[in-house]
Amino acid sequence: MSTAGQVIKCRAAVAWEAGKPLSIEEVEVAPPQKEEVRLKILFTSLCHTDVYFWEAKGQHPLFPRIYGHEAGGIVESVGEGVTDLQPGDHVLPVIKCRAAVAWEAGKPLSIEEVEVAPPQKEEVRLKILFTSLCHTDVYFWEAKGQHPLFPRIYGHEAGGIVESVGEGVTDLQPGDHVLPVFTGECKECRHCKSEESNMCDLLRINTDRGTMLSDGKSRFSKDGKPIYHFLGTSTFSEYTVCHVGSVAKINPAAPLEKVCVLSCGICTGFGATVNVAKPKKGSSVAIFGLGAVGLAAAEGARVSGAARIIGVDLNSNRFEEAKKFGVNEFVNPKDHNKPVQEVIAEMTDGGVDRRVECTGSVQAMISAFECVHDGWGVAVLVGVPNKDDAFKTHPVNFLNERTLKGTFYGNYKPRSDLPGVVEMYMNKELEVDKFITHSVPFAEINKAFDLMLSGQSIRCIIRMED
Amino acid sequence: MSTAGQVIKCRAAVAWEAGKPLSIEEVEVAPPQKEEVRLKILFTSLCHTDVYFWEAKGQHPLFPRIYGHEAGGIVESVGEGVTDLQPGDHVLPVIKCRAAVAWEAGKPLSIEEVEVAPPQKEEVRLKILFTSLCHTDVYFWEAKGQHPLFPRIYGHEAGGIVESVGEGVTDLQPGDHVLPVFTGECKECRHCKSEESNMCDLLRINTDRGTMLSDGKSRFSKDGKPIYHFLGTSTFSEYTVCHVGSVAKINPAAPLEKVCVLSCGICTGFGATVNVAKPKKGSSVAIFGLGAVGLAAAEGARVSGAARIIGVDLNSNRFEEAKKFGVNEFVNPKDHNKPVQEVIAEMTDGGVDRRVECTGSVQAMISAFECVHDGWGVAVLVGVPNKDDAFKTHPVNFLNERTLKGTFYGNYKPRSDLPGVVEMYMNKELEVDKFITHSVPFAEINKAFDLMLSGQSIRCIIRMED
Repeated sequence: MSTAGQVIKCRAAVAWEAGKPLSIEEVEVAPPQKEEVRLKILFTSLCHTDVYFWEAKGQHPLFPRIYGHEAGGIVESVGEGVTDLQPGDHVLPVIKCRAAVAWEAGKPLSIEEVEVAPPQKEEVRLKILFTSLCHTDVYFWEAKGQHPLFPRIYGHEAGGIVESVGEGVTDLQPGDHVLPVFTGECKECRHCKSEESNMCDLLRINTDRGTMLSDGKSRFSKDGKPIYHFLGTSTFSEYTVCHVGSVAKINPAAPLEKVCVLSCGICTGFGATVNVAKPKKGSSVAIFGLGAVGLAAAEGARVSGAARIIGVDLNSNRFEEAKKFGVNEFVNPKDHNKPVQEVIAEMTDGGVDRRVECTGSVQAMISAFECVHDGWGVAVLVGVPNKDDAFKTHPVNFLNERTLKGTFYGNYKPRSDLPGVVEMYMNKELEVDKFITHSVPFAEINKAFDLMLSGQSIRCIIRMED
Repeated sequence: MSTAGQVIKCRAAVAWEAGKPLSIEEVEVAPPQKEEVRLKILFTSLCHTDVYFWEAKGQHPLFPRIYGHEAGGIVESVGEGVTDLQPGDHVLPVIKCRAAVAWEAGKPLSIEEVEVAPPQKEEVRLKILFTSLCHTDVYFWEAKGQHPLFPRIYGHEAGGIVESVGEGVTDLQPGDHVLPVFTGECKECRHCKSEESNMCDLLRINTDRGTMLSDGKSRFSKDGKPIYHFLGTSTFSEYTVCHVGSVAKINPAAPLEKVCVLSCGICTGFGATVNVAKPKKGSSVAIFGLGAVGLAAAEGARVSGAARIIGVDLNSNRFEEAKKFGVNEFVNPKDHNKPVQEVIAEMTDGGVDRRVECTGSVQAMISAFECVHDGWGVAVLVGVPNKDDAFKTHPVNFLNERTLKGTFYGNYKPRSDLPGVVEMYMNKELEVDKFITHSVPFAEINKAFDLMLSGQSIRCIIRMED
C-alpha cells in the first residue's frame, strides 16, 4: 500500500537541548510539498558539523532539532513539480562541511563551509580524516608560472573512509579505508594493462583540470558558486569526491594518520629506488636531494640492503636528519671545487651502482647521471624540472652501459600496488613514522605551509577532525 | 742417460722431391752449436707455407728438405752461449705466414710474409681460417681523426683454431675452435664479476694500443721490424696472437666460415635487442640504421617475436634487403617534412615499445629516444657518435617513464656468452647466413674493402686458406 500523500510515522533521533544525548522518538513526517521529496533514509553517518551545531557554541541555537546531513536513502514520494526524481530512486545528499579554500595565489587558506555534491557515475565521496602537505600543493598554490585556477581546494596526500559511492562503483563501498591518489588507474587503458607503466591514459595527473572528468563540473561549491578541484583529490576538505580510479582501498587496520603520507611523496621516492633503480644488496646508492622524496628514496635503498647510501644536498643541515633514513655518507657540492660527479667517482672507485635524483634541477640530473658507474650504473630521475630545461650529456656516457630512466609516482599503480605498500608498513619493513615531523589541527592548516616553506618539516599531518 | 753432446737418431718426414709424398726416414741430428738449441718436437701442424714451398712452384727448389714450422717441443740441449733456455724448457717456434699489412692509411693492404712470435704468458696463438671485414677496420684503416698507427694488421671478426698456448693458459688447448673478440673477459675484474657488464677493466677495447698487454711488444714482425696489432685480434693474418681473455671457445661442429661474423657486428646488434632492449612478443620495435649491426638488431627483434619491426634509414635501397631480417615497415626520414619521431608516434599510437639506434648520428639518437612510447618505452644506443656530440632532450621525456640505455658488444661477455650464441645458430634460432653476402680469397682482401666502401656487402668473408 502506497504511503504517498500520507503523513508517515517513524523513528527519529531528536536533539532537545544543546550538548545533551539525542533521544529516539516516534515523529510524524508530512508529505513533500512543491519541489520537495520525501526520503526513506537507509544509512547516515555523523559529521563534525553535526556535532558543532549540536554543541551550539557561538551560533544561534535551535531546538528541538533533527541533525544529520550525510546519508543515503530511497525516494518515497515526490511533491508537485519534481521531475528529476521519482519514487524508488536511490539518492545521496549534498554534504555541507569544512574545507580550506585557496581564494588567491599565495594567500593563506580560509576554512569555509562548502557544499560537496554526491558522487556521480564511477565516483566516490570520501570522508578525509588526515591529510598531509606536499611541495606540489605549495607549488600550485604559489601559482608562479602555471595557469592559475582559483578558488581551489588543494591537498592530495590523505587517508579517509568511503562515505558513499556513485553508480557503477563495485570495487569500493561505504566504510572502506582508502588513500586518494593524484594519479589514477582505470585498469582498462594500454598503460594500465602494461606491466611497465602506471601512467593511466584516462586518469593521469592533470594539474590544469579543476573539475571532474565525467561532466567537467566541480563537486564543490559555496553559495552556489563552484570551487575548483586539485589533482582529482582536493583533500583539504572534510569531504571530497574522487574518481574511483584514483582511490586505493587499504587494510582497515592501518593507521590513517600515518599511512596517509603514502599517497604521494613517500611512494614516489621509495618506489623510485625499489621499483626502478633496484639496487642490489651491498651496493652503493647516491641520493641527490634530501627532501621528503629523497629521504624516501634513501629508505628504499636501506630496505634494499644497500651498503653505501650517499646523500647529496646543497644544505648540510639536512645530513643529520638523513641518517635516520639510512644515509651514511654525505656530499655537499658546495664543499668541493670540482664537479660532484667527480667527487663521487673518487669516493666509489669509478661511480655509484645506482642513484636517484630528487631535486628537479637539470644540472643535478646531469651530474647524477654522470656519477653512476659504467658497465652497470642506473640513474633514475624523479624531480620535476623547469619547462625549458634540457638534459645534455655525451652519448658515450650511455654507450659505456649506463642506464637513465625516469619515474612517475615510483612506478606504483595506485589501486593495484598501494595496498601492498601499506602492508610493508604494517609488517614493519617500511618505516613511515620518521617522515612525520609535525602535526596540526585542520584549523591551523596554514601553519603546515609555514613549516614547509621554512624547511622545518618533512611531513606535517593535518588532522581534519580536530 | 743424457743425450746432450751426442748425435741423435730419430724419425723425420723427408721431402725428396717437389710435390711428392714425404717419406718417413731415420735421420741423424747433430748437437746444437753456438746460440743454437736442439728440440724434441712433440707436435707439429701443417701450414699453407709448408705446402707452398713443397710444391716449389716459382721459388728456388731445395731438396731433400725437412719442412714444418708450426710445432711445440721441449729443449733437449743447448749450445754455447745460450742462456735464455735450458734443457727441459717447453718451447714454441716463431711462425712465418702470410698477413695483409696496412703500411699507410687508406692504401690497399699488402700480403706479406711475416713472423709471428710464440704466445707468452696468458696468450694463445691462433690459426685464422676465416675473417670478415667490419666497418671498424675500415674506419681505423682510413685513420681520419684518430692517432695513426702503421704498419698494422687489421681484422677482428674471425674464426680459427688454437695453434699453441702460452704459460698459464688452462682454458684453451691446441685444436680448440675459437672466435677472437675485440674486447675481452678476464673473469677477475669488477666488470667481469658483475652480471650486468661486459666492459672488462683489463681487456676492454683499446683502439690506440698496437701491442700486447703483457710486455707492450708486438708479436708480429717483418725483417725484424715490428708490425702493430689491432684490437688485440689482428685477424688479417694466417696466424695471430691474442690474450686468452679475448678468445671464445666454441662448438667445434660450428662452421667457422659462418660463425666468424659473430665476433663483432652481428652480436653487437643482436645482443642490443635481445639482451638490452628485450622486446616482448607482439611488441613494436624501431631500428635506426639498416647496416649490418642494424640488421642484426632486427634479427634480434624477429627472434624475440616482435610484431612490428620498423626500419629507419636515409637510404631506401636498404629496405628490400632488410625484409629478410624481419623488418616489415619502413621510414625514410627524407620522405617526411616533420621529425621522424613524430612520424613514428603517429604510426604507432604514441610511440614504439622499443627501439635500437645503430647509426652513430647524435641526431638519430635523439629522434630515436623521443620516438619510444611513454610509460614503458626503452631506447638503446649502439652506434658510436663523434667525439664532441651532445645528447640533448627535455628531461620530462625521461620522467614520463622512458628508459635510455647504451650497450657495448650487445652486452655479451665474450668467453661466457659467445658459445651460447653459436649454439643458437646451430639450433637454427639465429640466422647468420643471410648476413654473408660476399666471399673472397685472402689474396683479394682489398676487394672486401671495395665492397664495403661501395655499400654492396653486408659481410664479406675472407678465406685465409684460399
